[in-house]
Amino acid sequence: MAVKRRRARALIGLKRARARSACWSLVVHGGASTIRPSVLQPAREAAVRAALAAVLDDVAKALASGAPSLDAVETAVRRLEDSPLFNAGKGAVFNSHGEHELEAAIMDGRTLEAGAVAAVRGVKNPVVLARRVMERTPHVYLQGEGALAFARAEGLEIMTPDYFWTEECWSSFKEARLAATARRSAVDSGSGETVGAVALDRYGNLAAATSTGGMTNKMPGRVGDSSVIGAGTYASNASCAVSCTGHGEYFIRAAAARDICARIEYAGNDARAAVQAVLGRRVGRLGGRGGAILVDRAGHVLAWANTDVMYRGAVTHKTPVRTAIYRREPL
Amino acid sequence: MAVKRRRARALIGLKRARARSACWSLVVHGGASTIRPSVLQPAREAAVRAALAAVLDDVAKALASGAPSLDAVETAVRRLEDSPLFNAGKGAVFNSHGEHELEAAIMDGRTLEAGAVAAVRGVKNPVVLARRVMERTPHVYLQGEGALAFARAEGLEIMTPDYFWTEECWSSFKEARLAATARRSAVDSGSGETVGAVALDRYGNLAAATSTGGMTNKMPGRVGDSSVIGAGTYASNASCAVSCTGHGEYFIRAAAARDICARIEYAGNDARAAVQAVLGRRVGRLGGRGGAILVDRAGHVLAWANTDVMYRGAVTHKTPVRTAIYRREPL
Repeated sequence: MAVKRRRARALIGLKRARARSACWSLVVHGGASTIRPSVLQPAREAAVRAALAAVLDDVAKALASGAPSLDAVETAVRRLEDSPLFNAGKGAVFNSHGEHELEAAIMDGRTLEAGAVAAVRGVKNPVVLARRVMERTPHVYLQGEGALAFARAEGLEIMTPDYFWTEECWSSFKEARLAATARRSAVDSGSGETVGAVALDRYGNLAAATSTGGMTNKMPGRVGDSSVIGAGTYASNASCAVSCTGHGEYFIRAAAARDICARIEYAGNDARAAVQAVLGRRVGRLGGRGGAILVDRAGHVLAWANTDVMYRGAVTHKTPVRTAIYRREPL
Repeated sequence: MAVKRRRARALIGLKRARARSACWSLVVHGGASTIRPSVLQPAREAAVRAALAAVLDDVAKALASGAPSLDAVETAVRRLEDSPLFNAGKGAVFNSHGEHELEAAIMDGRTLEAGAVAAVRGVKNPVVLARRVMERTPHVYLQGEGALAFARAEGLEIMTPDYFWTEECWSSFKEARLAATARRSAVDSGSGETVGAVALDRYGNLAAATSTGGMTNKMPGRVGDSSVIGAGTYASNASCAVSCTGHGEYFIRAAAARDICARIEYAGNDARAAVQAVLGRRVGRLGGRGGAILVDRAGHVLAWANTDVMYRGAVTHKTPVRTAIYRREPL
């Protein structure tokens, strides 16, 4: 009898897991930046909008066809890593030794499974490596040489340093080095252009992923919030999926991504109230600048930043692809 | 007028910061373990109790004399790192390459400032390095070779591998290697004996610190929850200070330490309800075993685990030094 009841429950579970609604949502970001909007060149603005729109367009088709949110966020972030426009994968910024150290994380809101990598060199797509950590190791978080050795063992693409090099990041690095009269002022530039994605799929499952090259002129071995589960990246079907961008140290101290989820889960906040409370008040009061994208379990999408510029875009089953850059632009 | 008002406020602030109450609290742990209580040798049990009591005794004197909680937790964890009885500093477990990779974190509940290090080799006291990261770099989190280079630049003690070697950890490592027929089963042993401390000082400020050698036979570069701010370590004067111990991967996925604080702050839980909900339900349901110590802003102390054994101890301004090991032992 008990066995029958368990079987019946298992069947209901299976049915639920397979039930597809028509609803899905996707939000991506290409970083929040403290640069003045007037400084942004029209050509760069157009290129960023086109890159975000192309990713949204392709991943939207997959979600509409029933792709899982975990695949959607991995693909979106991998595509943004491959673009030299953003500080992740190709186009990553330089640390104080003139090297690229990358970090990324991915999280499945259904199972709370997660994978993350930090301080990895040469790996073309850190988000793909993060997912391999999640699915093919007993661990959640690998760093440094150990993460690189695992990437090699998995046969992931490893690139030479010139692949990651861009003229823009090299100029920023040289400027930051010149301006580095005081240690603390040296790393305040170039923390933007982290990339991330959050999605709700047609099975009602949430997922989040984030990837970055970190801060220009950062100390070797420095880890930011992007790869820290709970700080830059979090997803739980009980609340929402979040990917953050900004001055990572403040987001770690606030445990920002999990705190946004916790406000929704425990304080009954809606998504906007939760993000504004955590980023506007907790992170903002510490002095942290940046933003976050979010999708909740009802499929509501949101992008919010306390900076003037945040590269972002969204698409859902009922709204077409939209991109936005400036503070007051609607998403 | 405005200036005067600001000055008056500043003076009030100063007075508040300096106001000393008679209340202080300290809790330490030496790890939660999944071993059966009957396996524990009486000699080891006595040695662990004595080590915890000695640390509590000394740090209690400092707290009673007005030492800040941040100094208290750093000292307590440093002392436990120096003991070969625990899996942190001297006595750390071996990774799958037969090496010691250490991690630690410290957090100040008053300012939400934090410092953390992971995958560092040779540093005698990782918790001291974590505090240096917090106070002497623009970053929160350093890992690997970069963290070691910073430790050298700061003049911290660097030890050769034989310093960390203990007969017990080497035996566990050899056993784990022999048992490692399947990758996922290889790391389930030896995750206990992480150390941590939480304190409330006479100024009403909370702090937390955690340090560990991780898991026996872990992959090189693996990072657990101890150094992840929000997972194994968190402190906020708005709620409580927490240090966790156990199977770190599950604590990262639950963002356990911050989630305990969030339940107190947002859901109005008391300390026990918050810890039981997060460790008993969220972490426990994922399959994670372990525990946490906590002190809230009123000075209430708590140690809770879903394992049979957790090395722990506490002392406050009104209760003497007590240690406990088994599940039903009162603290």
